[in-house]
Amino acid sequence: MAPTQLTKTAQQARQHLMVPAQDMKTLGQRALPALSHGEGIHVFTENGHRLIDGPAGMWCTQVGYGCSEIAEAIADQATTLSYNSPWYTTNTQAAALAEQIATMTPGDLNRIFFTTGGSTAVDTALRFVEYFNNALGRPSKKGIVVRRDGYHGSTALTFSCSGRSQTAPHFDPPAQRIHYLSSPNIRLSGGQTEAQFLETLVEEFETLIEANGPETIGAFLAEPILASGGVIIPPKGYHARFKEICEKHEILYISDEVVTAFGRCGEWFASEKVFGVVPDIITFAKGVTSGYVPLGGVAISDKLLARVSGENAGGAYFGNGYTYSGHPVSCAAGLANIKVFEKLDLLNHVRKISGYFNQALQGLRDLPGVVDVRVSGLVGCVECMTVDQRIIAKAEDRAMATEIDTLCFEMGLIVRPLANLCVISPPLTITEDQIDEICDILRTAIIRVTAEHLAA
Amino acid sequence: MAPTQLTKTAQQARQHLMVPAQDMKTLGQRALPALSHGEGIHVFTENGHRLIDGPAGMWCTQVGYGCSEIAEAIADQATTLSYNSPWYTTNTQAAALAEQIATMTPGDLNRIFFTTGGSTAVDTALRFVEYFNNALGRPSKKGIVVRRDGYHGSTALTFSCSGRSQTAPHFDPPAQRIHYLSSPNIRLSGGQTEAQFLETLVEEFETLIEANGPETIGAFLAEPILASGGVIIPPKGYHARFKEICEKHEILYISDEVVTAFGRCGEWFASEKVFGVVPDIITFAKGVTSGYVPLGGVAISDKLLARVSGENAGGAYFGNGYTYSGHPVSCAAGLANIKVFEKLDLLNHVRKISGYFNQALQGLRDLPGVVDVRVSGLVGCVECMTVDQRIIAKAEDRAMATEIDTLCFEMGLIVRPLANLCVISPPLTITEDQIDEICDILRTAIIRVTAEHLAA
Repeated sequence: MAPTQLTKTAQQARQHLMVPAQDMKTLGQRALPALSHGEGIHVFTENGHRLIDGPAGMWCTQVGYGCSEIAEAIADQATTLSYNSPWYTTNTQAAALAEQIATMTPGDLNRIFFTTGGSTAVDTALRFVEYFNNALGRPSKKGIVVRRDGYHGSTALTFSCSGRSQTAPHFDPPAQRIHYLSSPNIRLSGGQTEAQFLETLVEEFETLIEANGPETIGAFLAEPILASGGVIIPPKGYHARFKEICEKHEILYISDEVVTAFGRCGEWFASEKVFGVVPDIITFAKGVTSGYVPLGGVAISDKLLARVSGENAGGAYFGNGYTYSGHPVSCAAGLANIKVFEKLDLLNHVRKISGYFNQALQGLRDLPGVVDVRVSGLVGCVECMTVDQRIIAKAEDRAMATEIDTLCFEMGLIVRPLANLCVISPPLTITEDQIDEICDILRTAIIRVTAEHLAA
Repeated sequence: MAPTQLTKTAQQARQHLMVPAQDMKTLGQRALPALSHGEGIHVFTENGHRLIDGPAGMWCTQVGYGCSEIAEAIADQATTLSYNSPWYTTNTQAAALAEQIATMTPGDLNRIFFTTGGSTAVDTALRFVEYFNNALGRPSKKGIVVRRDGYHGSTALTFSCSGRSQTAPHFDPPAQRIHYLSSPNIRLSGGQTEAQFLETLVEEFETLIEANGPETIGAFLAEPILASGGVIIPPKGYHARFKEICEKHEILYISDEVVTAFGRCGEWFASEKVFGVVPDIITFAKGVTSGYVPLGGVAISDKLLARVSGENAGGAYFGNGYTYSGHPVSCAAGLANIKVFEKLDLLNHVRKISGYFNQALQGLRDLPGVVDVRVSGLVGCVECMTVDQRIIAKAEDRAMATEIDTLCFEMGLIVRPLANLCVISPPLTITEDQIDEICDILRTAIIRVTAEHLAA
């Protein structure tokens, strides 16, 4: 298409935007499809093409698009008090949202520090680990244990904690204090049972701690489900066992719930109620506003804070903070979002419909080219490969998945293009009929594309 | 005051909020004053106390509070399209704002990457330096040169680049690749003329480069005015001279305009038009939305990008991105904010009124206890000390300034509490009468508080 035929938005984007994971080869030559509006679980391109928002934006559009309650709350707050400096004032919305979130978190995670999103939430949690162990006089206890296939953000530090960071072109290797454990993906276990695989993973963690010395390990940072790394659900009991080991060695357990919180797994927070673990710190973002305005945050255990505050503070301050920490408009969106959840009884809806969602996606498991289907709550993925027995996806597998995504897009479904996976994690308001529609499109696309690839 | 007498917001904040630079000794025992609403340049506490917003929130509330155009734009966008994933779609607002900002930036800084605020903008710029030099096959060229008294953010990396990072309690020393130059504060020059001081600073930079080898230095990261470090305005010609040195050694010049852009110095961007430098990269945030919604970004030179994109890309992608990159609601706020600037002819207003602002603040210079007054555009500070000849502020100087701030607050003016400085950088809509009111309050408070301290 000649440049003159491009829409104004496409022209502007081509010339002036740089996007996440920008393909540098096509910089200035291509633009992504522009969306113009959204309604419920649907978005529309500026050309009028209607699409089901399969991945809920970026795992975040929980209540869907066009929610007037959130839009009104945002507008009211922007008119009433559009900003306040969190360094020397506070606002009603930040205080109320902090209290509300504290009632939702497990254990005594009652203290909330607000940030601008997931990356700054995880960055804050890790900076707190540094502060905490220095304050307690154990400056060497700073190691961070993460998993391959984990994803924790895009700041220099949080990106380093992501299991795929080593494969990103032209970035430096992560700092030595970051240690990688295996991905808890049973497909990579060499045929172990779930129970055996758990023991293998536990042993790996214990060996890592022993090899480095527990006095050098400050935190274990883990998503309950490894979302962007491929919707990997650790073996049953994994989280509680890892927490036990953390407690034994005074390693802080940070549960990165940026994806799993706010209803994605049928609970406000999934750590305890779904995965049986009460962490020391939880990070959240995305679903907290259903993506309507940027917001993230960290919930920290009172017991933990007591060790470095009050009489134990030594006159120090926690030198961390963002201009937009506790932003009144973001927090107003957060409060309105929770009200919408309650009005729609959305947690219950997710608990009820996630069985149907699981069954529907599992129904694709027998298609040729599909090697695995993984589902938890309303997060699911269908893993496709050109050669059935393969454990690790190759370039041709990724190419095939991209073709499936493209075909789905044409048929009216956004599938998050993630390596060789078709990721589906729709807005939480989804109905059974809409799940059927998603699976019909996916089925058609997978059958059509894999037939070509497997025949080749 | 007993807890039962606290307002609901104060109770919630005490129990559940952790704030930027949290004083750990008083965690859970104190809460900051809660603001309930704002109008123009004024904010109101929940007790009805009216205050002039002296520091424009956190250098960001450019058009002031209660701007219905921005509130409506936010509400419309939240209703129309509340979110899109920037990884695989784009939106009209992000593309349009990118184009508009590209017309405002100096030189060929035409490519915009959006983030969630200043920290993530600077983090992105520094990650780009890493990417750029690795892509060009010079992996050792990663050193970052910064200045003492500079401030660049609160992620682990950007905080390390801040000149005060070494004094923050319980944080680790910055990585070895971060090099510190002196603060370009002529008060610390030992009585040199501005021209002499410039030569001293230039020599220090050249010596640092030579000592480490230019092949190890990737970037010079600098605010045009060192804002949070104390409104420090480098000597005339500083920026252009430093850029010359950067060019000679292929060091990228990153101008951190999070504070100075969007009218604060009477221009969209201050680098070229006020300080005579065309940087390679500019970071921005705050004023881009007048603080109504979180947004930040990076503008990168086309020439720079050409060296690592298109035919030079080698099939690589820039592995960086935020869930909220190019958020449609944030970008809609940015576009509406620019329209308000244009409707009010705000840049011209700042150019006209900043002379009056300067004169008014300079009028405080002769007060006892005032050792310096520094003003550029609508950023100003009055430096107070208990002993006139002192170069470095001591604890009693900071205590005195805090008392001045407290008294100003009682008299209806927020002064940003920054060490021994009274910082004033009001909303850009400020009038001459309002400047007079600010200076009257400041004068009264300074006279009253310093009289006690200097008499002691």
